[in-house]
Formats: sequence, C-alpha cells, structure tokens
Amino acid sequence: MAASAGPEIERLISLLAKLPGLGPRSARRAALALLKRREQLLVPLAASLAETADKVVSCSVCGAPDTRDPCAICADGARDNGLICVVEEAGALWAMERSGAFRGKYHVLGGLLSALDGVGPDQLRVAELVGRVRGGEVREVVLALPATVDGQTTAHYIAERISGPGVEVTSLARGVPVGGELDWLDDGTIVQALRARRPT
Amino acid sequence: MAASAGPEIERLISLLAKLPGLGPRSARRAALALLKRREQLLVPLAASLAETADKVVSCSVCGAPDTRDPCAICADGARDNGLICVVEEAGALWAMERSGAFRGKYHVLGGLLSALDGVGPDQLRVAELVGRVRGGEVREVVLALPATVDGQTTAHYIAERISGPGVEVTSLARGVPVGGELDWLDDGTIVQALRARRPT
Repeated sequence: MAASAGPEIERLISLLAKLPGLGPRSARRAALALLKRREQLLVPLAASLAETADKVVSCSVCGAPDTRDPCAICADGARDNGLICVVEEAGALWAMERSGAFRGKYHVLGGLLSALDGVGPDQLRVAELVGRVRGGEVREVVLALPATVDGQTTAHYIAERISGPGVEVTSLARGVPVGGELDWLDDGTIVQALRARRPT
Repeated sequence: MAASAGPEIERLISLLAKLPGLGPRSARRAALALLKRREQLLVPLAASLAETADKVVSCSVCGAPDTRDPCAICADGARDNGLICVVEEAGALWAMERSGAFRGKYHVLGGLLSALDGVGPDQLRVAELVGRVRGGEVREVVLALPATVDGQTTAHYIAERISGPGVEVTSLARGVPVGGELDWLDDGTIVQALRARRPT
C-alpha cells in the first residue's frame, strides 16, 4: 500500500478490510466512497459506530445485542415465556423476527460447538440456556441452528442437556424453500424434503 | 427490518449498506461482526472514521485526500513538477503509487464528464488543471483515465483544453495486461494490443 495515501487513510482501509464481505480492494473503494461523501456517509457512520460501541450491550437473559438490558424482546410481556428459540447469532434472530412468525423468546448461543476451532460448551451461552429451561416456565425449545456438521452437533448436545419432563425440544423443518427450484437445491435438502413429504 | 434489533443497530446497518460492495444482507453481517469484535474492530473503526472526518482534507493543488494541504506528494520536492498524471479518483492515484513507476505529480479530477449523469467540466477540477499547466513549468500531462466512453470523452476534452506549445499530452498504453490470458480479455483490448504491436 502506498504511503502516499497517508497513515490515517491506510488505517481506515485496513480496518474496513476486516469486515466480512470486504477485501483489501473493496475496502479501498469503500474508503474512497467515504471520503467523497463526507457529510452524508463518513460523519454519520463515525457517529453511528461510536454510539453503537457506547450504548449497545448483550442482553443478560438471551445474549442479543440491544441498548437495553434485558433487551426489548426479553422485556416484552406480550411474548410467550414458555417458548424459546435457540439461534447461533443475532443475525438469525433478526431473520426470525423479520418473518413475523415467532412470538416466543430467544436465546443467542454466540457460536457453535466446533472441535476444529476448539469451541466447547463453555465458550457458548449453554449454561445460561440450561438455567432458563430449569427455571420451570419453558414448555418448548425450538432449535434454529444451521444444517451444518457443527450446527447439528450443537443441536444434539443442547437437546441432551435441556431435555427433561415437561420440555419439548424441536427443530425447524427442513425442506424446499418457498420459491426454490429443485434444479438449484443441494441433494441433502432434496433428500430431506422427500423423506418429510406430506399429503397435499 | 425488525424493530427488535434496536434503532441504533438499524441505523448502523443502513449506513453500512451504503458502502460500495455491501448490500443490505452483507451490511447486517458486517454489523454483527462489529458487535462481536467490539474492542478489536468496532471501537478502532469508529475512532479511525472520526479521525478521517476530522483530519483528512482535499489537497488544494491536486485534489487528493490527505491530512496535509498541500498533500505529501505535492509537497515532495524530489518529484518532477514538469510531469502531471491526471486520474479520475484517488483510487487510481494509489494504484499508480503502488506501481512505483511514476515520479511526477498528480491531478485528481473527482469524476468524469458524463452527459447521462449531467456532469460537466465545472463539476470536475478541470479549471485547476488548466491553471497548473498554464503555470509554465509543466512539460507533459499523462492522462490515466478509464477506457470507457466517459473516460475517453473526458480525455479528449482535457487534451483540447490543455494542449499548447511546450506541453505534450499522452495517455497510458493500452494492451494485454501482464499475466493476462487472451482467452479472458475483451475484444477491444485485443484489437488495441494488435494495432500497437511492437517488434520483440
């Protein structure tokens, strides 16, 4: 990288390059866009990041990022306390919320068990989940974890830890996505969709 | 977008989505990565953006972004004042500097002439370039503008404005890039490389 861009801009580019989806080249383009749109983009983004760093905390109940603790969902009395959806990250929680189909509470694990990456149960918020379930109010835990090896390992581990009398553990159905064409789907999804076929 | 992510995070996501290379979905992933890596990424990026907004200005001579005015290149007495390379944006300037092949000064236009987008010479730093060339010290102006319709229109316009006795206007050579395979090159490049063929 040329020293001529100045140490401040070089530093900005190297930080932007650490964001998922941006490499060194696209980070330079992003930095240029920021420099060109100073008032519309650079200044507001700087303020927004500072505010996020300052105000956003992890909810002590579910682990989701929010400015309040407990978060807006955990504090919402209209939502079903007997139903907990377990997700890997807040991104999955946001996706569930966009669907509008779930009216229970959440539990964000903060990752998945991974022998390869050395992630054990202690690095995840598993003990907190067990504590919530042992609290007695929970009827059902929906595991919304990825259909990967790590995701399914984590799902089995959690199911073993929390299953007990009065608590049902379920998983999201696997199948053909709405609008999905068979031609573009992986074989595993087709196999599972066929096995779980239903009368129409 | 779910209101549950909180207005601060929603605002951060919508600002990130305005960066080139990031859409709404990858902006959410970037926001998640920032929230997960608070001390390593979120806080330093907020500080870096604030510093950039605070310190980086456009060089009054060449238009490049730098913390100094005139910028480090314009202030560098070891560089050739008689040679000016004209680029569209600072990104092209940085690429030229990375090559290490150019030891003159630069002029950043800040865009290209575009009838479609309504960009005329007054929106670009053309008058400043004419002024620098009229100053008398300049022997050669190298146009390093894109090989697009707008790029070539701009190149022709600038060549007309600045050409005069004692000033040579040149353009970067077009041809097969180093390491480029013919199979992957567009026809226009092959035509130009063939026309400009040289004895080996």
